[in-house]
Amino acid sequence: MRVHNFGAGPAALPLAALERAQRELVDFENTGMSIMEHSHRGDAYDRVHSEATALLRALLGLGDDHTVMFLTGGASQHFAQIPMNFLHPGQSADYIVTGGWSEKALEEAQRVGTARSAASTLENGRYTRIPSAEEISIDPAAAYVHVTSNNTLYGTQWHREIDAKGRPLISDMSSDFLWKPTDLSPYDFVYAGAQKNLGPSGVLIAIARDSFVAQGRKDIPTVLRYATQSKARSLYNTPPTFAIYMVRNVLAWLTDLGGLAAIEKINREKSRRLYAALDSQGDFYRAPAALDSRSTMNVVWRLPTEALEEELVTKATAEGLIGLRGHRSVGGLRASIYNAVTLESVDALVDFLKQFARAHHA
Amino acid sequence: MRVHNFGAGPAALPLAALERAQRELVDFENTGMSIMEHSHRGDAYDRVHSEATALLRALLGLGDDHTVMFLTGGASQHFAQIPMNFLHPGQSADYIVTGGWSEKALEEAQRVGTARSAASTLENGRYTRIPSAEEISIDPAAAYVHVTSNNTLYGTQWHREIDAKGRPLISDMSSDFLWKPTDLSPYDFVYAGAQKNLGPSGVLIAIARDSFVAQGRKDIPTVLRYATQSKARSLYNTPPTFAIYMVRNVLAWLTDLGGLAAIEKINREKSRRLYAALDSQGDFYRAPAALDSRSTMNVVWRLPTEALEEELVTKATAEGLIGLRGHRSVGGLRASIYNAVTLESVDALVDFLKQFARAHHA
Repeated sequence: MRVHNFGAGPAALPLAALERAQRELVDFENTGMSIMEHSHRGDAYDRVHSEATALLRALLGLGDDHTVMFLTGGASQHFAQIPMNFLHPGQSADYIVTGGWSEKALEEAQRVGTARSAASTLENGRYTRIPSAEEISIDPAAAYVHVTSNNTLYGTQWHREIDAKGRPLISDMSSDFLWKPTDLSPYDFVYAGAQKNLGPSGVLIAIARDSFVAQGRKDIPTVLRYATQSKARSLYNTPPTFAIYMVRNVLAWLTDLGGLAAIEKINREKSRRLYAALDSQGDFYRAPAALDSRSTMNVVWRLPTEALEEELVTKATAEGLIGLRGHRSVGGLRASIYNAVTLESVDALVDFLKQFARAHHA
Repeated sequence: MRVHNFGAGPAALPLAALERAQRELVDFENTGMSIMEHSHRGDAYDRVHSEATALLRALLGLGDDHTVMFLTGGASQHFAQIPMNFLHPGQSADYIVTGGWSEKALEEAQRVGTARSAASTLENGRYTRIPSAEEISIDPAAAYVHVTSNNTLYGTQWHREIDAKGRPLISDMSSDFLWKPTDLSPYDFVYAGAQKNLGPSGVLIAIARDSFVAQGRKDIPTVLRYATQSKARSLYNTPPTFAIYMVRNVLAWLTDLGGLAAIEKINREKSRRLYAALDSQGDFYRAPAALDSRSTMNVVWRLPTEALEEELVTKATAEGLIGLRGHRSVGGLRASIYNAVTLESVDALVDFLKQFARAHHA
């Protein structure tokens, strides 16, 4: 029996994508080999690689001026690789800090060169909201402005356009990439580890404006230059072929479902039902995120005591509701309801939360 | 029907490892989730991660002073990451150049700092042999000495101990890691992309002396410091969990088979039969590698004309013998006979080669 997986990443994958992988794992399309055994320069793998790129382009309606890359290293590596590429000597970069991952992105940029916080919503040791436009002060000469579109630890998300005041805009979309139709034309570089909305861990998708990538520094290691992989169609060296194959399967599932407009409708309904359940139990459940900053992907909440939180996790796990413990750095509870988490899973969680509240609420 | 896969990487995997993955792809050990969907910090994945490490340690008889890491980026990234870590300001590193990959390793080191060739066997634009001890001149102050244990493009391999004259010894073992029992105690750092002898692409294994890793530079990006991943058991950030799971399956297969002594016997027999077949047809087949440098992993040969080489590839492919085209940079033919390529596959190739020679040989 399949459990309800609310893990923050690696996370639930669409059953159809997994079953497709299982069917053809040993023999891919009657080639007598697994897709894992195919050369990355052979026809069979090339069709998969090209299809993954084409599906992504079609889903996003991506223009010709943007390039798609399949990379390794995860967001943590690209926190460093981005300033290595785009922070030229004498320049400074701006970071909008809305949670633990944007903190790390800023720290790594400061190890590479000069970078500063253009806004931070840290208050009393926590982040509970996205800053208002007035709170952000962009350096008019910034090499780029870096934002984190969704914050997994605190359950907050940007719900408005970001004004980078004409500077190049870079976004870490790891935890909400493809959650709804998104116009990427304002962005010069976006990146997302696959293990939340896209596939297994081990591959990162980057989409960048060609002209921006071309301006990247040339005095860094060849393989770490985005221009190298962009020119080589992500085949400069051996890519993580099976992870990209799985991304292809997930993108095909998303396309069959009706694309980004269809998944947005489902995602909005999932988060609406879950927040409504939390809000309906007086102050037994407290979601600390500000109302206008609530994430549609990571729903974070607390209970009156840590003992009750622990009890909830134990009971939920016993009922097949998995991965509800909050990130070790912040505690509390968290349900990640990425694209592949079904409405049925959310309904099962909602039922459980109501029952648990009834049993414990004074 | 399963084909005979002689591809150079991604390469053939043991059927048992693939079938195991297929069986449990959707539901891993009755957890109701795929291993790809499990958190990298959860118990189910942690058992796999720990088992992969333990199997590797047991197969190699690894001492406590060496650490095992599962990394991303492939050898091409580590060509740069190694000098970033171990080439301190004012130092120079020595590279022994025996083929295209060691050339690239040296080039990337020279982008990062100062590095030089301590020996090169390039003659008339090609590499056909491993240098003799007398040809190698190690800088007595070298930060480290870097070698490539096996050369996939030219089909050559080191068959003797490497004397680094007391300097730290680093080896790129990507294409022959675990081909036979190997004492790693003389090495300070060895690394191997998984996609030849170990698993799918997307993960690289590094084994290093703890004290050497600890001396690595601290002024580089956090995630690129080997010390970071060594301390974190390769869990500083999300690792490529499915690729590591596949490595676990391959290592379990290798252990069941009887370990490295058993696979060495099979590997020696495979290469013996294949070279014997090539040598038995007069000068129709010419293996350019020097006799004492012949690789047990990549067997490279030429035919009298390129047209005949093309014909051989076409006919072989039609008979289910896949991946025999030489690397695009050197041409000719190549059969990669890594650990997972069976004796039966080699025998099928030997039969084909004899038949092809009989049909064309004057």
